[in-house]
Amino acid sequence: MKIIKKPASETWNKLCKRATINKDSLQGTVQNILNNVAQNKDAALKKYTELFDGVALNSLEVTNKEVIEAEGLVSGELKSAIQLAKTNIEIFHNSQKEVSKKISTIKGVTCWRKSVAIEKVGLYIPGGSAPLFSTILMLGIPAKIAGCKEIVLCTPTNKEGIVNPAILYTASLVGITKIFKVGGAQAIGAMAYGTETIPQVYKILGPGNQFVTKAKELVQQQGVAIDMPAGPSEVLVIADETSNPVFVAADLLSQAEHGADSQAILVTTSNKVAQNVIVELNNQIEELSRKEIAKKAIENSFVVVLTSKDECIEFSNKYAPEHLIIASDKASEYIEGVINAGSVFLGNYSCESAGDYASGTNHTLPTNGYAKNYSGVSLDSFVKKITFQEVTKEGIENLGGAIELMAAAEGLQAHKNAITVRLKEISNV
Amino acid sequence: MKIIKKPASETWNKLCKRATINKDSLQGTVQNILNNVAQNKDAALKKYTELFDGVALNSLEVTNKEVIEAEGLVSGELKSAIQLAKTNIEIFHNSQKEVSKKISTIKGVTCWRKSVAIEKVGLYIPGGSAPLFSTILMLGIPAKIAGCKEIVLCTPTNKEGIVNPAILYTASLVGITKIFKVGGAQAIGAMAYGTETIPQVYKILGPGNQFVTKAKELVQQQGVAIDMPAGPSEVLVIADETSNPVFVAADLLSQAEHGADSQAILVTTSNKVAQNVIVELNNQIEELSRKEIAKKAIENSFVVVLTSKDECIEFSNKYAPEHLIIASDKASEYIEGVINAGSVFLGNYSCESAGDYASGTNHTLPTNGYAKNYSGVSLDSFVKKITFQEVTKEGIENLGGAIELMAAAEGLQAHKNAITVRLKEISNV
Repeated sequence: MKIIKKPASETWNKLCKRATINKDSLQGTVQNILNNVAQNKDAALKKYTELFDGVALNSLEVTNKEVIEAEGLVSGELKSAIQLAKTNIEIFHNSQKEVSKKISTIKGVTCWRKSVAIEKVGLYIPGGSAPLFSTILMLGIPAKIAGCKEIVLCTPTNKEGIVNPAILYTASLVGITKIFKVGGAQAIGAMAYGTETIPQVYKILGPGNQFVTKAKELVQQQGVAIDMPAGPSEVLVIADETSNPVFVAADLLSQAEHGADSQAILVTTSNKVAQNVIVELNNQIEELSRKEIAKKAIENSFVVVLTSKDECIEFSNKYAPEHLIIASDKASEYIEGVINAGSVFLGNYSCESAGDYASGTNHTLPTNGYAKNYSGVSLDSFVKKITFQEVTKEGIENLGGAIELMAAAEGLQAHKNAITVRLKEISNV
Repeated sequence: MKIIKKPASETWNKLCKRATINKDSLQGTVQNILNNVAQNKDAALKKYTELFDGVALNSLEVTNKEVIEAEGLVSGELKSAIQLAKTNIEIFHNSQKEVSKKISTIKGVTCWRKSVAIEKVGLYIPGGSAPLFSTILMLGIPAKIAGCKEIVLCTPTNKEGIVNPAILYTASLVGITKIFKVGGAQAIGAMAYGTETIPQVYKILGPGNQFVTKAKELVQQQGVAIDMPAGPSEVLVIADETSNPVFVAADLLSQAEHGADSQAILVTTSNKVAQNVIVELNNQIEELSRKEIAKKAIENSFVVVLTSKDECIEFSNKYAPEHLIIASDKASEYIEGVINAGSVFLGNYSCESAGDYASGTNHTLPTNGYAKNYSGVSLDSFVKKITFQEVTKEGIENLGGAIELMAAAEGLQAHKNAITVRLKEISNV
């Protein structure tokens, strides 16, 4: 892992720039898949599943029998772990419920917002190298709390046409009953357009490979909402003398094992911290089952040594990390300075793994610098906030004149007239 | 305005379908404009402004002198009206501030969210047939309340290179100081990429024509957030025997005057109400300055007569109107049933004009059926909600085992190891 010492501030932008992924080349392929799914529905899904995943499926929907069988294949220990995570995620996402507050802006005018669930949502869960059942908790729990009426889950099978048992167990635990054996861009098309078997949804959430990401981008342009744009996962760790190099190295590596394109950045004011972490990292990496992936990710990663705590947080804000770990006994001193980050982990025992699985926060977060302008998934992702207003006669009397003037100045006479007819009626009574 | 009596429920989908706008033909043109702006910056902006708007500008930025001059051109009455609207919009949007709540999910684990302003936002304000200074209130006020550090406003000028005085006055009142004389797709490109004069922003909000909408869609794919996808404006009015046909007609027309592609739908259980409203509408439309536009919009609009109140609200939810007016003394009885709508106006005195200008609610709302999956603009549109977590030693002891099991089951050994090294250190102390 290379160390960059006191980089001039002009070079920070370049350091913070993510590798560009050219997804344009995928556009044609993915658009074709989507068009085909829109037209040929289930038949197209089965064709692509055979072509890309090497499985010929008779039926796309996971049966109740399969779910029950899966439950028998998950160990009691793992079930308890998933239940513990579920409880914490429920507690935190329940706390995100917004209570409607009626606001009187002027006498006779009352305005409020009401959170109403998006009726139909689709969750995409990858099933490739890592069966991400934890993501079902992160998407399914807030969808349930929000009250989404229809929750559809698509996930690919293995070569035998079987969905990972932990995925089926977790989906069932959360209360998701519509599970379909389809992955890739074709799954996104299925949920966007609907097929004979798979219901159409209004919003699609969940991680995926480049094809999935491109498909989400394309259906978004057709009016289907998505959680957020996606990119490779990343962590930035700010570490000081009170950090533990063993912990920091482990945290950097837990990011690095995600994919060869992941980034793990260490920012510190201390050369010694930098050196110690690198020594630890080089030791730990050799022990990892996914060490080839982690090594590639570490090649794209770096350590920055800066001159002050303020510079560290400034660099972090410029990078806008998905995960920000502040490995310091004095982590709370950094909170005010955090402007751009997806999720922040404070102190030496707050590791990213905690938030990834079980602390209660969501792990679906903005990557690729999108923490500058996007929030992670939360209860908000599953609701619309509808505004309501009630204007009485008195309200119209208080507002009417101002509205008439403004509408006239904008050249919108019919807008003005909607007030005029009411004021006239009121004065005639 | 045609009346559709008791349409069979199978036909509702077709009735609720908006006219398809084929924006694909614009893609090439708009992409070219964007590429040119990315490359040639201010020079490209000046070129396009001359080409499309017929104005040769020396300087793109509105000067302080121009703002002061504009203030002199706006009547005292209109200024007071705008100030009244500003106060109400401030009250309502201030009430949307989220207070951070620290949640203990399990002993030793504390999680919370914090709203942090998006640092740089760009507001687009059309200046064409209607100078929409009201939209500056709707976008600028929440941007200021959120605490956005850089607020950029782009708006086209008239043929003399002058921005409408009410636009400059309102921007200044709200506290926006960076105002640029540029419109169309080129303005969106300028804010997305930055030029010598115009700062780059992370999120672009505001209405516009098809070119502006397409440009927003395209820069969104490059990581710039946008408020929401756009389509023609629309209202759906549910009216019963307690409604006033004069008011209902005026409300339908205030929507219709927006554009020839606007839709104004009346839903009622009463043939008599339908007939009375149509008579009124035909009278009022003749008096409008924008009657040609309104007449075209009314051609695309219709009245649906249904059999029950429940059917009315069901139809409305299927249509998912931007504006829903419930013209009834018993409007509150409908509230629970509203699932898909941008903003709801309750009762006979709550006209859309009120919310468009001065009641306090936002008028930037989801159109085109997007009320199924998008919210209107609010304070939320200008912040990211960053999650924080603090896990103590006790927290790791409570969560660690579960996380180890889950990480192992997902095949992510380094995630597991980040816990293991901590548990080991704790047990060694």
